[in-house]
Amino acid sequence: MAEASSAHTALATWLSARLRAQPGQPLGTALAQALRDGVLQGALAGGQRLPSTRWLGERLGVARNTIVAVYAQLTDEGVLVAGLGSGTFVSQALPARVPASPTEVAPHATQAPLLSARGQRYQNHPIHRFWSKEPFCPGGFDASLFPQALWNRLLAQSLRQTDAGLLGAGEPGGAPALRIAIAEHIRTSRGVRCEPRQIIITDGTAQSLELIARLLCDPGDRVWVENPCYWGASQTLSDLGLQLEPLDVDDDGLPLPPSRTALRPRLAYLTPSHQFPTGAVMPLARRLQWLAHAREHGLLLVEDDYDSEYRYTGKPFPSLLGLDNEVDGGEHVLYLGSFSKTMYPGIRVGFMVVPPTLAEVFGQASADFYRDGDQLVQQGLARFMAEGHYATHVRALRREFGARRQALVAALHQHLPQLITPEGPLRLLGGERGVHLTLGLPDAVDDQALALACRAQGVTVVPLSVYCVGNIHCGLVMSFAASPIDQLEALVARMAPALRQCLS
Amino acid sequence: MAEASSAHTALATWLSARLRAQPGQPLGTALAQALRDGVLQGALAGGQRLPSTRWLGERLGVARNTIVAVYAQLTDEGVLVAGLGSGTFVSQALPARVPASPTEVAPHATQAPLLSARGQRYQNHPIHRFWSKEPFCPGGFDASLFPQALWNRLLAQSLRQTDAGLLGAGEPGGAPALRIAIAEHIRTSRGVRCEPRQIIITDGTAQSLELIARLLCDPGDRVWVENPCYWGASQTLSDLGLQLEPLDVDDDGLPLPPSRTALRPRLAYLTPSHQFPTGAVMPLARRLQWLAHAREHGLLLVEDDYDSEYRYTGKPFPSLLGLDNEVDGGEHVLYLGSFSKTMYPGIRVGFMVVPPTLAEVFGQASADFYRDGDQLVQQGLARFMAEGHYATHVRALRREFGARRQALVAALHQHLPQLITPEGPLRLLGGERGVHLTLGLPDAVDDQALALACRAQGVTVVPLSVYCVGNIHCGLVMSFAASPIDQLEALVARMAPALRQCLS
Repeated sequence: MAEASSAHTALATWLSARLRAQPGQPLGTALAQALRDGVLQGALAGGQRLPSTRWLGERLGVARNTIVAVYAQLTDEGVLVAGLGSGTFVSQALPARVPASPTEVAPHATQAPLLSARGQRYQNHPIHRFWSKEPFCPGGFDASLFPQALWNRLLAQSLRQTDAGLLGAGEPGGAPALRIAIAEHIRTSRGVRCEPRQIIITDGTAQSLELIARLLCDPGDRVWVENPCYWGASQTLSDLGLQLEPLDVDDDGLPLPPSRTALRPRLAYLTPSHQFPTGAVMPLARRLQWLAHAREHGLLLVEDDYDSEYRYTGKPFPSLLGLDNEVDGGEHVLYLGSFSKTMYPGIRVGFMVVPPTLAEVFGQASADFYRDGDQLVQQGLARFMAEGHYATHVRALRREFGARRQALVAALHQHLPQLITPEGPLRLLGGERGVHLTLGLPDAVDDQALALACRAQGVTVVPLSVYCVGNIHCGLVMSFAASPIDQLEALVARMAPALRQCLS
Repeated sequence: MAEASSAHTALATWLSARLRAQPGQPLGTALAQALRDGVLQGALAGGQRLPSTRWLGERLGVARNTIVAVYAQLTDEGVLVAGLGSGTFVSQALPARVPASPTEVAPHATQAPLLSARGQRYQNHPIHRFWSKEPFCPGGFDASLFPQALWNRLLAQSLRQTDAGLLGAGEPGGAPALRIAIAEHIRTSRGVRCEPRQIIITDGTAQSLELIARLLCDPGDRVWVENPCYWGASQTLSDLGLQLEPLDVDDDGLPLPPSRTALRPRLAYLTPSHQFPTGAVMPLARRLQWLAHAREHGLLLVEDDYDSEYRYTGKPFPSLLGLDNEVDGGEHVLYLGSFSKTMYPGIRVGFMVVPPTLAEVFGQASADFYRDGDQLVQQGLARFMAEGHYATHVRALRREFGARRQALVAALHQHLPQLITPEGPLRLLGGERGVHLTLGLPDAVDDQALALACRAQGVTVVPLSVYCVGNIHCGLVMSFAASPIDQLEALVARMAPALRQCLS
């Protein structure tokens, strides 16, 4: 036959090899893919005539109908064109291209897209050198403390009550039952008076901050941030175009800036209950100063109350928002809460409290930007709270973490006697709260080198300096959230020599 | 007694009234709150001596120990101070403040925080006037098509296998089983060759775009966007600081810009499979032109393949990423997928495919910015896909939506004869794909007024002009995702008079 040209025979041989190389795929799909590759890689030239469907089917041992369908699809795509009379040809309308050379198809080709400047800042941030899931790294989780069976039972109950209607009909702002439960919880625990509609469910603090930045700030707006600062907050606010104005914290948290400053920031980001990471607790007088300043200058206070459940002596101070509620309408504070430190890190449920006037637009924007939330987990959590399990669980965690904190402090004193004093060189910073403890170091110490030395002993601590967004302060941040109490002393014993050596 | 001064008696009376007004609260908490309020609102002056704990306890009928604890807490907070000898006093160190006047505590005080310029742009965007959960609004969900019982069963299975360890140990980039299932799915359905590690699970397309902007773009970088454009994309990219450079789409999707343009954008955002919202399908030749342009100029193509599962004639075209795979390493395309149109809108699971060189940093950043994902749903979805249910479900949806599209087109022709022609005034735009259909209108028509007229008849359509980010084009976008086939004709009948009147 005339068709059995050497080009056609070569094509059939090549296609046959390709088909054998991809045994799992449907024949038609594999064949279309192979022919398309042939054209795109230049093995089949524009204008070249293809063999007839009958001939090719026989050579490949494939039903003729399959070949017909493949030719039709590739014609539809524009890879092939049907001739005016009979026959099918490779399209000549495709852009000319040089066949792929080996270097071109190398997986790490030279044209690999590069990170932008902000992407590089992210990638090169020193925190990555210290972040791990080992003790004492912040963000850890102790599975043994979580009431998994109870939680699974509640989720299963929610699941049985979940119908498909619910899946498509989330409420802007989050599941109403959860918002009611949260409003009640922060009323009794944090002195916050708000309507459930002011509670906006987000997937965590970063998303809450993002909503604030997108709705209440413009690119270039200034924001006062604590120095050192929670990395997720400084990263999010800066990526959303805000200009960070760091202010150094002291032993009472963030002081007001000098009154003659010309800056008029839009926001101040604060962690008054337990400054992250220094642990400072802001006294009431300073809280009131911030509120007065906010009222006078139209400043918005973002209160990140990330671990306020954990206070081991006395009762919690009222939150900034609670204070604002008492003396005013609560219009000056945006309150952020999280469940990642009381439930589990992957729960991806956080919330914010916004002023009544902003409730509608925040709920709407949350739905528009991030879609309706995960109803199943939201329903389960609402039930967990409404039935009192949350309060019980948090009480149990508070007891456990309080004991751990004591044990950690004792171990530090035991293994680093003389070195830990109020005057230094090692200082235990902050109040008796939270699930981490920060050791202050003289600012001349290279805390990153020290943290690496600890890590070489199998103990991950995060140097304070990596959280600094302005002046550099040194120290070691140690979380005890993920470490059983009976392991704390051994961990401290392992890192103590590095500290002694560094300070000798 | 000397203590029973009139000031103390008045205080006791006031406290007693406050306690009666808040019957649900623990006595100590309510009392502390009331005293704090008294100080903060100026009813108790700085330096004022408080009654003794014994006297106050007797007057209020409260155990003396409770009063002692309340005084101690407020002293701790700095509201009260202990005198040097005996007695407890209101602190004088608190900032002076004018007592709250009625206007000051009004819920909608004049100092209510205002939206920023970008917040106002969001709030005033015309799309809000047309967005609803009524037919034919895009984003709708038909619960009757979702295999709820099966899905719940798989989630329940995942739940039984979920232990607390899993909750705290999500993998950066998402659950491995889901990434494997997605890689396999897009290999067979979209011609994409990638490793599971290149798949990054996000909570949807907006989050995927956000990651791209944060890692690969700097503020002020230019991005070519389609005009009209998917609102979520233009909104996200612009909020992340990118400068949108809109290019008009034509009947073949987005054409390459004139070659002499001086712009060097970093990204181009494309929906080649089914342009949103015009429905245009980009032919192969143009896809290859974009790829060639990307290779030559270091441009990154963001391919949003949001509804590629829905094609009603022939087989799907290969994706841009699939084409890039064939001729190169696939380094020029970031591919975005979503499950909100095949599973349910609230599933909050989407994904992106990134080049191999970027897989690690994207996975890490996703975990850092958004925490580990919801493991339960990710595990459930992985199982749903691996066991073949996803493919079956999508086939069923494709049949149903194909029939709906036909019925909708037939109803439009029936109720608007003569008006719907290839030359207009009404044109059916785009290919036979997706779950929405767009009617093109002459650009002189006020499509927003027309949409409002339809809405007055109970039919929600979204005017094309609200998606425009450059030149204004007019039309009506109608989704049939949420409307049973037997209701389509009635809905068209209700909106047809408004269209006829508008075009007469």
